[in-house]
Amino acid sequence: MTGPRYTPLVDGLPATVPFVGPEVQERAQGHPFRARIGANENVFGPSPKAIEAMRTADADIWMYADPTNFDLRNALATHNNIPTENIVVGEGIDGLLGYLVRMIVGARDGVVTSHGAYPTFNFHVAGFGGVLHTVPYNGDHEDPDALCAKAHKVDAKLVYISNPDNPMGTWHEGPVIAAMLDKLPEGCLLVLDEAYIEFAKPSAVAQIDVDDPRVIRMRTFSKAYGMAGARCGYAIGAAELITAFNKIRNHFGMNRSAQYAALAALHDQDWLDATVAKVHVARTKINEIAKANGLITLPSATNFVAMECGGDGDFARKVLTTLIADGIFVRMPFVAPQDRCIRVGCGTDADIDAFGQALPRALAKARG
Amino acid sequence: MTGPRYTPLVDGLPATVPFVGPEVQERAQGHPFRARIGANENVFGPSPKAIEAMRTADADIWMYADPTNFDLRNALATHNNIPTENIVVGEGIDGLLGYLVRMIVGARDGVVTSHGAYPTFNFHVAGFGGVLHTVPYNGDHEDPDALCAKAHKVDAKLVYISNPDNPMGTWHEGPVIAAMLDKLPEGCLLVLDEAYIEFAKPSAVAQIDVDDPRVIRMRTFSKAYGMAGARCGYAIGAAELITAFNKIRNHFGMNRSAQYAALAALHDQDWLDATVAKVHVARTKINEIAKANGLITLPSATNFVAMECGGDGDFARKVLTTLIADGIFVRMPFVAPQDRCIRVGCGTDADIDAFGQALPRALAKARG
Repeated sequence: MTGPRYTPLVDGLPATVPFVGPEVQERAQGHPFRARIGANENVFGPSPKAIEAMRTADADIWMYADPTNFDLRNALATHNNIPTENIVVGEGIDGLLGYLVRMIVGARDGVVTSHGAYPTFNFHVAGFGGVLHTVPYNGDHEDPDALCAKAHKVDAKLVYISNPDNPMGTWHEGPVIAAMLDKLPEGCLLVLDEAYIEFAKPSAVAQIDVDDPRVIRMRTFSKAYGMAGARCGYAIGAAELITAFNKIRNHFGMNRSAQYAALAALHDQDWLDATVAKVHVARTKINEIAKANGLITLPSATNFVAMECGGDGDFARKVLTTLIADGIFVRMPFVAPQDRCIRVGCGTDADIDAFGQALPRALAKARG
Repeated sequence: MTGPRYTPLVDGLPATVPFVGPEVQERAQGHPFRARIGANENVFGPSPKAIEAMRTADADIWMYADPTNFDLRNALATHNNIPTENIVVGEGIDGLLGYLVRMIVGARDGVVTSHGAYPTFNFHVAGFGGVLHTVPYNGDHEDPDALCAKAHKVDAKLVYISNPDNPMGTWHEGPVIAAMLDKLPEGCLLVLDEAYIEFAKPSAVAQIDVDDPRVIRMRTFSKAYGMAGARCGYAIGAAELITAFNKIRNHFGMNRSAQYAALAALHDQDWLDATVAKVHVARTKINEIAKANGLITLPSATNFVAMECGGDGDFARKVLTTLIADGIFVRMPFVAPQDRCIRVGCGTDADIDAFGQALPRALAKARG
């Protein structure tokens, strides 16, 4: 009896995980985290109207969701002032990135990203046989010119950039992003991950013609809208590209209650504004904690703050390990020199207080 | 400005949809269906405990779901009396089929299924460049011997069978399915879709060693558990195969509330038993309606009934069209001779009454 014959590509892949979930750590430790501020989740949660919509829809969970996402796409079109045909809804940005990479990246195709940028995108590229080329961050910012130059060099089919950036929280002004399009090689698609865009100033939003075939923008209800567990994201792009998703996407892949919740969340922009204000306050508190400990933070346009620990990556990893053991779930950048920082999420007052108490202990332990 | 360069495979795919959702038809008609009994959804819904679990979890939707599905996999292991390492949880059977096909089917690889069987499986096979070979149904049953013979002929990497069958509702006894394993060529994996297995008699459940590397079984919370809109399914297979899903699956793809709901649903087997009893009653009612109209139904081990309309496929399509226009959402098999039937779901009493009233009108119109 022999097992199945995997494709050569899949046979050669490692069984990796882009991120280890906090639940895994909690089980290993035998106790839950006191503060869950490591996955860029939005502790302030979605609009109560979204929760109410979800709970109402739960009673009808026996029905599949509308596979065309008709109502949600129309609402997103109105909200973004673009045609519906330029929007595809999917199972979070992770799901949409998977579909996109599958559509474009085949064996040995070149893809460019920043060294240390979003691992799940890299996971998809490897998973479809693409070759990942990276350029370093420049002063803790992703480097548009270097990304474009590398794209020319390797004839990239995709270039990934997130604006604002994860894991550093930094951002480029919209015109800098928009200018990338003319610097890319022909036939190269810019994957503009705007997961955190609602936290940024309006000037950080790139103004790009919705039918420009050189870019696809990814948005989500996971971050500012506070619905990471719902799995609902969307992409904006040229109609032809958007339609192509229908060739391969899991048409019945959306959770029905999540569809309704996203619709309700979109219609409560007051809640979104209040969330952004709360995040701003939380960032300020995190900055104050850093200052009180003699540490420096990076400016952030997201719901997290990259905090320098005052040493190199090994030092920051020690700080992180102690924080984790102390019940504070945080993460940190994977590569140097960004890994001199830990990434602290904008939690509740209680979360941040717990972090503020744990940090000096962790620093002391790492130092001594 | 040129657009992205799709892979040759995706470039050549049509933008198809395996199924058109009832919402699309409702919008086209300008009114909702009176009876939604066409998508094999379970109108009796999930356990109230599952709905309660979902509503409770909704408040925490700001958190990603546990990417390892730890609690749910353990509960499924206990429920099925197998090790946890033999279970993978995913975004419905549709999602899991997509992952499975991706792992095994490459360009021009052979895959075998029955002509007229599950279109979404075929969608995935085409989507990864496989070549689909089909064998006809035999007396409205899928034909295990013909499937195995064809698998030898084309050196298939996958063979698909659903037991009980969709769209006909027929089934094979467990030993017939189990016997297929010894008839398959080496290195061929049997994809045993058991979406409807909870509706079948215990004798229809194949007894197969959980570590047998020649088969993967697909189960779901969409049908008997009444949670189609939640998108939660699972697969049982050899540990090596199950682990391989981690190479490519969307680790953070599960809806968090759906995880909790599935757990609660699994723990309410009384509700499941009651649902199966209700479905049995509904099947009887549908059979009586057929009889009253001089029509024949096929025996069913599912929550739907294939009903012969008394003519050929064109006749049945006319009946279906009139039913749809009359507010009754039903579907029918795609290919002859199975398309002499329409597929009627086990609805509520009101659903079935509405169908019972509409059917004679639809038959009269089709005849005249």
